[in-house]
Amino acid sequence: MGLILVRYGEIALKGGNRRYFLKRLRDNIRDGLKKNGIQGAMQSAQGRLYVETDQVEDALSCLSRVFGIVSLSPAVIVPSELGAIQTAALEWARQVGLGPSKSFRIRARRADKTFPVISPQIEREVGQSIREASGSRVDLSEAADLTIDIEVRPEGTFVYGGTIAGPGGLPLGIGGRAVALISGGIDSPVAAWLMMKRGCSIIPLHFRQSEVEASKALDNCRILESYAYGQEIRPIVLEHEQVFGDTFRKLHHIGAERWICVFCKRTLLLRAAEIAQEHGARAIITGESLGQVASQTLANMEAISYRVPKPILRPLIGLDKVEIAALARRIGTFAISTRDSAPCPYLPQYPLTKAEMGEFLRVLTELEESGDVHESIGL
Amino acid sequence: MGLILVRYGEIALKGGNRRYFLKRLRDNIRDGLKKNGIQGAMQSAQGRLYVETDQVEDALSCLSRVFGIVSLSPAVIVPSELGAIQTAALEWARQVGLGPSKSFRIRARRADKTFPVISPQIEREVGQSIREASGSRVDLSEAADLTIDIEVRPEGTFVYGGTIAGPGGLPLGIGGRAVALISGGIDSPVAAWLMMKRGCSIIPLHFRQSEVEASKALDNCRILESYAYGQEIRPIVLEHEQVFGDTFRKLHHIGAERWICVFCKRTLLLRAAEIAQEHGARAIITGESLGQVASQTLANMEAISYRVPKPILRPLIGLDKVEIAALARRIGTFAISTRDSAPCPYLPQYPLTKAEMGEFLRVLTELEESGDVHESIGL
Repeated sequence: MGLILVRYGEIALKGGNRRYFLKRLRDNIRDGLKKNGIQGAMQSAQGRLYVETDQVEDALSCLSRVFGIVSLSPAVIVPSELGAIQTAALEWARQVGLGPSKSFRIRARRADKTFPVISPQIEREVGQSIREASGSRVDLSEAADLTIDIEVRPEGTFVYGGTIAGPGGLPLGIGGRAVALISGGIDSPVAAWLMMKRGCSIIPLHFRQSEVEASKALDNCRILESYAYGQEIRPIVLEHEQVFGDTFRKLHHIGAERWICVFCKRTLLLRAAEIAQEHGARAIITGESLGQVASQTLANMEAISYRVPKPILRPLIGLDKVEIAALARRIGTFAISTRDSAPCPYLPQYPLTKAEMGEFLRVLTELEESGDVHESIGL
Repeated sequence: MGLILVRYGEIALKGGNRRYFLKRLRDNIRDGLKKNGIQGAMQSAQGRLYVETDQVEDALSCLSRVFGIVSLSPAVIVPSELGAIQTAALEWARQVGLGPSKSFRIRARRADKTFPVISPQIEREVGQSIREASGSRVDLSEAADLTIDIEVRPEGTFVYGGTIAGPGGLPLGIGGRAVALISGGIDSPVAAWLMMKRGCSIIPLHFRQSEVEASKALDNCRILESYAYGQEIRPIVLEHEQVFGDTFRKLHHIGAERWICVFCKRTLLLRAAEIAQEHGARAIITGESLGQVASQTLANMEAISYRVPKPILRPLIGLDKVEIAALARRIGTFAISTRDSAPCPYLPQYPLTKAEMGEFLRVLTELEESGDVHESIGL
């Protein structure tokens, strides 16, 4: 039976909420194991969780996608005998390829005080056998290439070495619910993922303009789903034409084509706010990043978000293009987002880059006062 | 005369805006050199800038704080002779401590075609002399420990090695203007810095409750100023009591103490929106991060931002506490933010963690219908 040590960070600091957060983390881990067909049991001790399973590799892959987990270490339990402990420690050293140019340290804890060898002596003896076998040197600092932990406990001794990063953040579901706008591009899935990482349950919302972009958006939703333990991801797809077509025709009719992008985004946000209200979601997540394209200016953002009745969360607003692309690669959405794309059929020749609010309000009033426009404009 | 090669990334991709962005970057660099008392000249060639100066170390320190710069390399110009080029390359190898366990690569470009040695041969001959002198090995990939670049040009040959990271992002000032709420804490200066990195000019706004927190906020503004080339940072300080005191007393009067934090933040945001309007700023920047403290919930954010007439930018919304602290350390605000702090005098015993909108609107209506409250409540 294999064992995985699960470390969680931030949630341990949460005071009164700690118990609730930890319950959520355990529930999400359980959901993750179940969804991946992994048989396993969970134990909790000393601010950590342990997952026991025969499917260690599968479980590591699943747990490395559970928000709230900071790091993971595969571990073994051996009988509390110095020889068995040394053998297990040597096995970890071998597995990570500890050699002459590398360094290591041993950290021993003796929770079972009936064990006759005290911690510093365990460290010395195990350390010596590893040094002799591998030719590597001891480094007692954080900088050591490998840290092997030994915990002597009544039920046996835990030996673990090597660490796999988790995604960090907070357990999914404790951060409330938000509608996440998902296009076919690079940014929006990353924005949604970052908010999931902060515990937000998301409702992906795509406005379909073309099959090409819709399939990219939905494929990215499936990637997001692979991190969504404790939550089902149920994307909502609306027809872009049905949401924006009327406003688009009116803008043409009054000769305000340059305003199309601003009003398009605002119309989608207003619709997203309605969907949020219907689903008990408290915010809208967008992939906006300041200055990344010519239309993503503060001026346009002010017009776009004018009187949108839900908070708009823009987790990428302060990130560079290269940082966002690196996140997309890490999450697994980059390849999907960069598939062949379909151009936006509404894009005017000269989209506005700096909406002036007075002018915006005049166009808005004119739109609201104009009746429905029925003539075809040959899209 | 020393020389520094300045590389800029994202702004090179900006199409029509490229010329404007580059002008802004040059202006900001010029302002940075001037503010730091550095005499220097700037040249531009092949998608790069060069700064010539006798004060290379000071200039590197200044330029590593100019937004839009991706990386810097100190360089030398030598006569276009193979011997001089080899000597200069060896000098870089020596300076970065290139030794037997390290790898390097040479990249030569011959812009001056009258130079008799072709690029591959320059690379071979310089590479060989470095290999012999240092014992290090050639690695033609990106993974090489040191890349030495050689550019043969009519005015001489540029040799440079080693790279210093710049902050990346976009030149300050091209992203429009925003009011940045600055408290005495860790988060808000980081949020402001990230938006400066995206080109935003900021107007810091602090609501003074205590001298302790006000001095931390103003000290952090001075750190932000050390990145603010091309812009003057002029913090605005308002008395918290004058902005929120009245609402605070009314909340007490109607027995809605639990709502104090929500209404406090909303009142400050409404005031910030007024200040933004007065100063031509198009947004408000806050340090909110979802779930970081018990009151930073989506539910509270919805109530707090209810009808705030400017977009609220929350660049930290998707980041973990450890990520924010790491940024604060890198920026230089962490030590200031973690000085002894003064507790908030308004904090109720049980602040609301999950504002319900119906209840929020009832309290809001009651507040708006109640007259001024004049009795003292003994703060």
